[in-house]
Amino acid sequence: QQHFTPLRVNSTLSMDKEIPQSQRPLTFLKQSESDSSSTIRARFEKMIRETQDSVCNAIESTDGGAKFKEDVWSRPGGGGGISRVLQNGAVWEKAGVNVSVVYGLMPPDAYRAANPSSSSSSPPSPVPFFAAGISSVLHPKNPFAPTMHFNYRYFETDAPKDAPGAPRQWWFGGGTDLTPAYIFEEDVKHFHQTQKSACDKFDPSFYPRFKKWCDDYFYIKHRDERRGLGGIFFDDLNDYDQELLLSFSTECANSVIPAYIPIIEKRKDLPFTDEHKAWQQLRRGRYVEFNLVYDRGTTFGLKTGGRIESILVSLPLTSRWEYDHKPEEGSEEWKLLDACINPKEWV
Amino acid sequence: QQHFTPLRVNSTLSMDKEIPQSQRPLTFLKQSESDSSSTIRARFEKMIRETQDSVCNAIESTDGGAKFKEDVWSRPGGGGGISRVLQNGAVWEKAGVNVSVVYGLMPPDAYRAANPSSSSSSPPSPVPFFAAGISSVLHPKNPFAPTMHFNYRYFETDAPKDAPGAPRQWWFGGGTDLTPAYIFEEDVKHFHQTQKSACDKFDPSFYPRFKKWCDDYFYIKHRDERRGLGGIFFDDLNDYDQELLLSFSTECANSVIPAYIPIIEKRKDLPFTDEHKAWQQLRRGRYVEFNLVYDRGTTFGLKTGGRIESILVSLPLTSRWEYDHKPEEGSEEWKLLDACINPKEWV
Repeated sequence: QQHFTPLRVNSTLSMDKEIPQSQRPLTFLKQSESDSSSTIRARFEKMIRETQDSVCNAIESTDGGAKFKEDVWSRPGGGGGISRVLQNGAVWEKAGVNVSVVYGLMPPDAYRAANPSSSSSSPPSPVPFFAAGISSVLHPKNPFAPTMHFNYRYFETDAPKDAPGAPRQWWFGGGTDLTPAYIFEEDVKHFHQTQKSACDKFDPSFYPRFKKWCDDYFYIKHRDERRGLGGIFFDDLNDYDQELLLSFSTECANSVIPAYIPIIEKRKDLPFTDEHKAWQQLRRGRYVEFNLVYDRGTTFGLKTGGRIESILVSLPLTSRWEYDHKPEEGSEEWKLLDACINPKEWV
Repeated sequence: QQHFTPLRVNSTLSMDKEIPQSQRPLTFLKQSESDSSSTIRARFEKMIRETQDSVCNAIESTDGGAKFKEDVWSRPGGGGGISRVLQNGAVWEKAGVNVSVVYGLMPPDAYRAANPSSSSSSPPSPVPFFAAGISSVLHPKNPFAPTMHFNYRYFETDAPKDAPGAPRQWWFGGGTDLTPAYIFEEDVKHFHQTQKSACDKFDPSFYPRFKKWCDDYFYIKHRDERRGLGGIFFDDLNDYDQELLLSFSTECANSVIPAYIPIIEKRKDLPFTDEHKAWQQLRRGRYVEFNLVYDRGTTFGLKTGGRIESILVSLPLTSRWEYDHKPEEGSEEWKLLDACINPKEWV
């Protein structure tokens, strides 16, 4: 009696959407490019895909329960990605680890927005771009086990067709940050120390600079508080040697597991009350506020029709908003909030 | 040993924040203005405050459990508001009914944004403004009982000091809309019929026009779906007689209880499963996405440092994001999603 039609028959959006793939390719690069495995593009793709494998293996092994579900997709304009999500595990309620490697032609407006200094005397033509990144958010169940996020990305633009002399430009960005609902000082110190050690191998200015950048970036302006206890963050970095920044990004990505997994092993089985859980859910509400209102990757992705399920995998499985909640002064909840409002030096 | 300092010692934000009041005033208007109770300003304030009282009474009476908590605040620049929130009741998990009546001087930029046609030949001076409104979101516990939102507001600007001849301008806006997790056709029909009846008392074009405006407004672009099943919505309305629009807004506000409470009475005690609850939580996640990413009142309020707890009381107590959730074709969940993607005519 009832017949079902596709839910979205007239969606114009669906025209330039990602296409599901049954297998992950060896590389998302064009054939011509993947042959020369020495390019930064090729080496960055290799690095993020290896990181995706090693992080997912570590998560599955620590979780002991659920397995990651994989979605491979390609982009009609060029490139594709691999989304991996573990949901409702023994340790994590939601863990997403995504890589994407995309390229094509960028609308002139987007190029100008990214390059305010670019000459705008003549109407520019589309700019060839390349963007690759790994992005991950891991939300545990136990309120004493912290959420962690990391993201490392590489971006390139080529000269537009009508300006063949213009330089190829490139940028690195990324970071790793920790968002607990409760503070165990030894955990936060261990986490920051691991970031600092990775930074110090390259430049003594990196950790203090990127630690502050992290505190500044993950700022929920309307609350006058940070979403968590920070870590490191950098963006649009191109004022160092390209090889150094590739090595640095690799070192940071390799530090994710040693920074995070030991903390989870210590906290995942601690007993907790409904009140502990409710506070964790409330802090997850703040996480949602930051990601939907301020996070550049999320807001850009939502506006430009990226793969919504990959973008929003960063949101927790469950979250909570209580009206005018104020933790009791001096309580453990108050201490966490204080550290989100007044960032501290942990190492 | 440990001493506690105020969490936010250096916040510049707190300088122009609302000030808590121990009692609600008879009126938030200036003394001079409240004497002439026949102004639209005074009559609009009276209407929204009576609506706040009657809606809160109806909610408390239907809930039978919890009571509203009231916060009265004043704004250093002029005016104030009354926030009322009922949390964790027997029927509603969160119900907020707020009124605010604020006025003062608007920065020229904001005035120009609101009046693109205003002459901009000379550098303008601040514009006196007046804004009053009632705003409410009601989130029940039972997944078969729908969420409802309504909001009615009135806005005025005076001539700037340096342009005494410029006309006073005014606008009405508002709407009432329903967001169920499951469709009971008789409920949605009753809800829309009540809105239509209110509209038809004034102009036969109102319901079809404002029904479509509602479907267009509560659109989650990145999902290509609406947050719910609509109702009526209008904004920046000034092309009708001012008295007519005041009467119309009053009629709409008076229709809130008869449109909503009978539905709640029918659904509040229906038995449900964990799966029903999970689907409701998932739809509440969509509610959060709409409000934080698209809702004009919310995004404007967050950017301009309004009272955060009043603004975000619209968010549900609990919500949920599952990766790539797709309801089974033909299921009750699928039917709701279909109606959010392809808006229907209910009356």
